[in-house]
This record gives sequence, structure tokens and C-alpha cells, in this order.
Amino acid sequence: MTAESAPFADIRRLVSEMPGPDEDALAMVRARDAVLTKPAGALGRLETLVEWLAAWQGKAKPTLDRPLVCVFAGSHGVTARGVSAFPDAVNRQMLDNFSAGGAAINQICAAYGLGFKVFDLAIDLPTGDICERPALDEKATVATMAFGMEAVAAGTDCLAIGEMGIGNTTIAAAIYCALWGGEPAHWVGRGTGVDEAGLARKADAIALALKTHAGHLDDPLAVLARLGGREIAAMAGAILAARLQRIPVVLDGYVSTSAAAILHALDPSALDHCVAGHLSVEGAHAEVLHRLGLAPILSLGMRLGEASGAALALGLIKGALACHRDMATFAQAGVSERMPG
Amino acid sequence: MTAESAPFADIRRLVSEMPGPDEDALAMVRARDAVLTKPAGALGRLETLVEWLAAWQGKAKPTLDRPLVCVFAGSHGVTARGVSAFPDAVNRQMLDNFSAGGAAINQICAAYGLGFKVFDLAIDLPTGDICERPALDEKATVATMAFGMEAVAAGTDCLAIGEMGIGNTTIAAAIYCALWGGEPAHWVGRGTGVDEAGLARKADAIALALKTHAGHLDDPLAVLARLGGREIAAMAGAILAARLQRIPVVLDGYVSTSAAAILHALDPSALDHCVAGHLSVEGAHAEVLHRLGLAPILSLGMRLGEASGAALALGLIKGALACHRDMATFAQAGVSERMPG
Repeated sequence: MTAESAPFADIRRLVSEMPGPDEDALAMVRARDAVLTKPAGALGRLETLVEWLAAWQGKAKPTLDRPLVCVFAGSHGVTARGVSAFPDAVNRQMLDNFSAGGAAINQICAAYGLGFKVFDLAIDLPTGDICERPALDEKATVATMAFGMEAVAAGTDCLAIGEMGIGNTTIAAAIYCALWGGEPAHWVGRGTGVDEAGLARKADAIALALKTHAGHLDDPLAVLARLGGREIAAMAGAILAARLQRIPVVLDGYVSTSAAAILHALDPSALDHCVAGHLSVEGAHAEVLHRLGLAPILSLGMRLGEASGAALALGLIKGALACHRDMATFAQAGVSERMPG
Repeated sequence: MTAESAPFADIRRLVSEMPGPDEDALAMVRARDAVLTKPAGALGRLETLVEWLAAWQGKAKPTLDRPLVCVFAGSHGVTARGVSAFPDAVNRQMLDNFSAGGAAINQICAAYGLGFKVFDLAIDLPTGDICERPALDEKATVATMAFGMEAVAAGTDCLAIGEMGIGNTTIAAAIYCALWGGEPAHWVGRGTGVDEAGLARKADAIALALKTHAGHLDDPLAVLARLGGREIAAMAGAILAARLQRIPVVLDGYVSTSAAAILHALDPSALDHCVAGHLSVEGAHAEVLHRLGLAPILSLGMRLGEASGAALALGLIKGALACHRDMATFAQAGVSERMPG
């Protein structure tokens, strides 16, 4: 055992303890669905979303009484390389905007009755510039994952996770490139709206970072520490903690999914309690979701982050659960069932 | 002028009087969107949905204070040919289920605070079997369209339309086949869940109907009368009335879109105030939407009808409007705007 591996060993132990789906709850939901006043399967994804809630909550009657949207915010040393269209100062300004209720995510949470929490992960202390050094050391990475785990409040019955952090689409692209190979230009997108030159700076920064950390990126947790950021580590912790507490998770877009990808690289079953809230138009998000085996609920051309796509999907899941929970059965409504074929 | 054309002339006159979008309201919405605290374009379809609301409501500050979901229910003589997996008796039973609040659409409307009305279009009096005779005569067709027009309550600020009627996926497929050609088998789907033999009976019924009415299907309104049904005619009337009253419309799935297709055939701009709530997995709905120039908001593998997909989309549009209406501007929040490129 090297000196480095001790903190990571705790994370690996938690991953090895992840519970599986509750097959009994799943069977109960399917049995009820079969007698609701609609043709079998006619609600499509709405039906499978309720099955997913039941299987991971471990409840034959799944609930959405305390849905929670968590946004994790971090800042990144790599922004010194001109990878964003907005200045670092926006990080603090957007945290204030979240607190004042002025951001898009505030309106979406209000529209659908979702709880909302923001976590400031040392927003005034950027991580190391990944082109030169690790973003975080291993101890800080694990401590930040632990912070994310603590953020998952007991009693929450569905968790949507998202992020905010100038420069973090570059960070996410670096993670995808480290995990799955290929050219940096394949993974990156325009983030908050960089021009062609900015896009080239993003790809160049990633290429340089991969060179700087070459030989140290075999372990997904090392990828997280060296190329990630505090909000990425916290989201990975939150996703893992939710699994351990039987809380289904709705992932947001391009950046959030990079935290999920770290866990998936540790154990391909680590995201079985997760759904992808939406397909972002940022970078190669479609390929990312495909590699993670996740089918997005929504595809609306969004690329905002701050859990906006996940929260919209959670609003839709509320409708799905309402159908399952409150529809009449054939017997209750006196509706004729399907005729023999 | 033939004796037949008089009732249809009134409809054609209304179509010719359709207003266009309000370009001033559209410009006002775009100007506000540009200063909201997010990167330009980052909310994707949410932004264009608000533009659409503004342009068709004619309001620089669009509203969703009185969204209304209307379901039109009819019965069809063609069901005698074994084209559905459910018996005709379900029509009356489902109307009772809507009234009792037990159907999927009731739960979706409750979840998103949407008004809900059901219209019983002589549910105990099936239309003519289209394989043998017109579904309705021209006078009844226009009267039913007028009924649908009356259903659009003044003060409604967004209308979702849907339908219920055993056998009406066969009716919709017949309309598509008459308007656009091709083999019946290309357009039909399994509806409420027919088997292979049922699917063949649907295609056979449509082929026979097209033969019966050959030479009388050049006028889209004649297609509606001869091959349609009361709920189809009423939906066509409602869509047209909404346009005349500046009420944006959210279309439901495969069957609802057939009413829209009749209007589109009369005037390709007739659906400019409409969005497609969702892509249904019934039959060739993807091709139908493509032909109508409509991009679905949702794609969830649904095929229920009863406005369920449109109402879910309307729930999502509420979130889109909340963002536009209530987000802080860069100036209000003290957030830095995009840096010069």
C-alpha cells in the first residue's frame, strides 16, 4: 500500500457496499401498473421512472414528498488559460444570485415544489491549474467527497444534482478524455459560449494536463483528484451517499455527468440508482451518456448547468408518480379490460 | 358552387382570417432574455417556448395563468371491424373515469395546476363505418368543428388538446393515408395494443375506406368528414378557434395531430401557433410531425392519448415561463456579463 492509497481505500470500501434494487418493491409497482385504467405500457417512460423510484427507494409505494436539488459550486485554476467566456468573479456573483432567488434553478424549483440547496466549496480558492499540478491532493479530494456525502439529507426521497463553476466544462472534458481516451477536441464544447479561439484553448489545456499527469491516471479516483474540482468531487460523494441511503438520483448535464463517470469507472453498477435528467448540447454529452448506459429523460437543447435540466426532469417525474399513485384501477372505475386477442 | 361546399366555405373563410405572430412581443421577450443571468441560449428550447407564447399571445410578458387541457371524446363505427383491443363500452366508462378524477390526465393536470375539461361528442352514437360510408356528413362535420371552437374559453392563455375514442388510431391513420398517400400499413400502429391480426385488420379497414371514398378526398375538409370522427372535427375547430383568439396550442399525440394535419392541408401556416407536446410511439407519428414541421417537446415512449403528453409538455412550459418571468437580470444580480471574445 502506498501512502497515497489510504484515503481512497475508504471510498472503494463504500463502493463495494452499494445496495442493489429492491425487487419486491419493483414487482409491487408493476402489479399495480398492470391494473391502472390505461393500456399496458401506454405511459412509456413515466412507468419505468416510477419503477426506478420504487426499486431504489425500496418502497412499494414510492414517494416524492421531499425532493431535493443540490448545486455544488467550485472554482478552477485552469481558468487562467482563457477557457471561459465569463470571468472567475461570476462564481461568487452566481452564488449570491442563487441565495437571492434570481437564477434559473430558483424558478424551476419554485415551479415544481422542489427543495433547493447550494454548497459553496471554497469558491474563492481555486483548485490547482491542472495543466501544471493536481487540482487537489488525495486527502482534499476525499474530504470534499465526504462533504458531498454529508450534503445528502436523510429523509430526501429523490435527489437532483448539479453544479456551477466557471471553467468546469474544461474540467469535465479532461475527465472524459482521461477515462476514455480520444482527442480533447472530441470531448469539449463551447461552455458558456467561447469562440473558436476559446475552444482551441480548452482543447490545448486538456492536452497539456493529460501530458502533465501522464502515468498517474489509471485509477479513476486519481483522475478525479488530478483533473477534477471540488464540485466534481462533492457530486461524486453525493451520488455515492444517495445510493447507500437508497435515494434515487437525477443527474444534470455535461459537467455533473463527469462526477458520475468517475463512479462508473470504479464500478459499472454504481449509477444503477441514477437517471440522466437531460441531454445537454454541451460537448460530447450524447456519447458520455451512451458510455454510461443512461438514456436522457429530456432533450431540450439546454446547456446551463446549475441542475436546471435535472430539476425539470424531477418536475416531470412528479407527474409520473402522480399518475401511478392516484389513477383508478379498472375495477375501481368499472372500465373494461383489454379484450382477449 | 355545389350544394356540399356551403358549410365548408365558412371554415375556409376563418382559415383565411388567421392572424400572424406578434413580432413586437417576440422582440421584447428576446431583449429580456438577452440580459437574464445565464449564458445566451443556455436554456435552449425553454427560451424558444417563451418566445412562442409571447408571439401568439401577443404579450410582451406572456402568461400561463389559465392554462386549459381539453379532451374531446367520440366513438367510431369502424370498431365493428375489430380494430381495437378494447370494446366500445370503454368510451362511456372512460368519460366517467375522467369525471371521477381517476384517469392519467386527471393526475397530470392536478400535478401541474392545469384546468381540465372533457367534451362528450355524442359518445353513444358512433360515426358511420368509414369502410362503407362517410363518418359524418358535411353539415355535421362543420357543426362539430363549431362545437370545438366554442370549447375554447375566452381567457385561456394556453390550450392543450387531446382526445379519447376507441378505434380512433385507425381513423387518424386513414386521414394521414388520404392526405399523404402510401400504404395503410406504413401509417398504422398498435393503438391500445392490438396483436398482429388486429394490426392487419386496421390496415385492411383503411384500404377499404380509401377505396370506398376514392375520388372524394381531394379537399382536406372532405377527408375530415368522410374518414374522421367527431373528436377529430372538434379538435380541428378548437385549434382554429385558438388561433383566431391568440391562444397558443399544445398538440397531443398521434390522433390529435390528425386534426392538425387537416388544417395544415388547408393552409401550411395554420399550425404556426401550435407546438407538438410529445412524440408518440404510435404508428408513424415521427413522420407525421416531420411533415407538419413540428419538433416534439418530449419523447417519452408514450401512446395513451387523452392529452397526457400535451399536458406534461404544458407542465414543462410553466417551468420555462417561470425562468423568463422571474430570473434576475445581470444588472439586478450584479453578475458580470460575457467577456469580450
